[in-house]
Amino acid sequence: MRFLITGAAGFIGSNLADRLLADGHEVVGYDNLSTGRMEFLEIALANHRFRLVRGDTLDQTAMTAAMSGVELVFHLAANADVRFGTEHPRKDLEQNTIATFTVLEAMRAAGVRRIAFSSTGSVYGEPEIFPTPETSPFPVQTSLYGASKVAGEALIQAYAEGFGIQGYIFRFVSILGPRYSHGHVFDFYRKLRNDPTCLTVLGNGRQRKSYLHVVDVIDAMLTAIERAAGKLTILNLGTAEYCQVLESVGWITDRLGVAPAIEFTGGERGWIGDSPFIFLDTAKIRAFGWTPRYAIREGVADTLDWLIANPWILAERE
Amino acid sequence: MRFLITGAAGFIGSNLADRLLADGHEVVGYDNLSTGRMEFLEIALANHRFRLVRGDTLDQTAMTAAMSGVELVFHLAANADVRFGTEHPRKDLEQNTIATFTVLEAMRAAGVRRIAFSSTGSVYGEPEIFPTPETSPFPVQTSLYGASKVAGEALIQAYAEGFGIQGYIFRFVSILGPRYSHGHVFDFYRKLRNDPTCLTVLGNGRQRKSYLHVVDVIDAMLTAIERAAGKLTILNLGTAEYCQVLESVGWITDRLGVAPAIEFTGGERGWIGDSPFIFLDTAKIRAFGWTPRYAIREGVADTLDWLIANPWILAERE
Repeated sequence: MRFLITGAAGFIGSNLADRLLADGHEVVGYDNLSTGRMEFLEIALANHRFRLVRGDTLDQTAMTAAMSGVELVFHLAANADVRFGTEHPRKDLEQNTIATFTVLEAMRAAGVRRIAFSSTGSVYGEPEIFPTPETSPFPVQTSLYGASKVAGEALIQAYAEGFGIQGYIFRFVSILGPRYSHGHVFDFYRKLRNDPTCLTVLGNGRQRKSYLHVVDVIDAMLTAIERAAGKLTILNLGTAEYCQVLESVGWITDRLGVAPAIEFTGGERGWIGDSPFIFLDTAKIRAFGWTPRYAIREGVADTLDWLIANPWILAERE
Repeated sequence: MRFLITGAAGFIGSNLADRLLADGHEVVGYDNLSTGRMEFLEIALANHRFRLVRGDTLDQTAMTAAMSGVELVFHLAANADVRFGTEHPRKDLEQNTIATFTVLEAMRAAGVRRIAFSSTGSVYGEPEIFPTPETSPFPVQTSLYGASKVAGEALIQAYAEGFGIQGYIFRFVSILGPRYSHGHVFDFYRKLRNDPTCLTVLGNGRQRKSYLHVVDVIDAMLTAIERAAGKLTILNLGTAEYCQVLESVGWITDRLGVAPAIEFTGGERGWIGDSPFIFLDTAKIRAFGWTPRYAIREGVADTLDWLIANPWILAERE
């Protein structure tokens, strides 16, 4: 089976490409390499069933051409920078909402009927029900990122109804694991590497968050596209647990053998639009037979191991 | 107080302009006159407190200039063509989603802090709860129109959180009354005028819909912006009743004194993405002291009276 992955040179996209190739599939990797990294594609590029197309998700013509013979598109390319949305609001609109529209139009033009989309638990805003089910009350968006993703979801839903495509919408918690290159573990590790005596934590450190290992998120998506048959499948993907940011800080400092003084910027939220509690109800994906292999603590540990073994990724961002 | 109305030359926009002017306010009408009509602005244009700016909602610079001194923007301009979304999917994206983003950016640039937005009951897709409350379960979109409006809502919500603007989101049922120029009453009246012996009805005629008079929708919006103080207010606007399409056909044929043979195209839905049952819970807006003056049947009658008195509006569309 031939897949196209937008954002194939990204964290999740490159792990997915490796997995699909290992399973014997053909993969077209589509990436504009704005934040994607060629290093992440080393394994894939060595495989004759992989083809990299350098292109933008706003370029419908290039995408349509790349989709030739493709059965399912994993649309993972996105501006994943949740925190700085208010500094460049157009970025979320263009790279998430308009890009998803362009992917759908390219699919129509190329005759591709199936799409799997990386949405986010952020679309629940600040929910009142925990764990939060897919049928949680009509949410109110608190971030430009969440707004852009809920718009992408809505487009896929309307295309499923209006054009008969089959859509899979996955609402992710934060993802960890090899090739992880932004988020709190990355930030804390980088800061502690520069100065192991002091660590500044955004908010009051009591924010409760869920994290899923990239291996588990890929297992879950492949389980869903294999077993869920309807025209539209919406699934939360997360672990059955959450942790406080402070706990995670403890795991990180333990693993690194450092004992920094912790400073808090204060407040319940790390930044405007930060959700102080993310914990998704994953009964629906579990009913398809999926269960995560990594607990949050193991995911954090595995991520640290990868960051330690790949110091180049920190060097570039400094 | 100075208001800006996008879509001021449209059905609801022009009625709102007249009302605000009658209440002693200043109004900047913003319209690209693509579907708006100068005839609807005859009363407003005769008022020295009204100024018409001919511009597009995708033109941020022109909108920013037009917003000088404005306290609240009524963002009503939209592609309101729900039925033909799949024939031109880009239209909903551009004229509804991207336009709403552009209005919000113009507001930021001009320092305008308040926005009232005409959303739609279509954002509930095909809900399972009737009457449908604002906190209905996370909906699935069934039309490109609904998708584009839910995206507009999400942007306003994110701007309320991220930029401190105050947002009012109104989810309308179908609106009727003077200057009504598209929708089922319009279509039926035009068809019966051409051939009073036969009428084709989309679907099976059993679709249940709600209709609100334009006078009532304007009252409701003005009540909300006066009395609801929070950073974000989301309100359904509709009557406490619904009717079947066939009932409405009966009212129309009675009023016109015709007895056509009725043909049905069949199916529960009039078109792909048509919602077979729209009935919104309006307890929330009623709690602010608003109640509609027109029953659905009265609204249909008033609309017919206006269409009969204004035959030019049918002539142009034929």
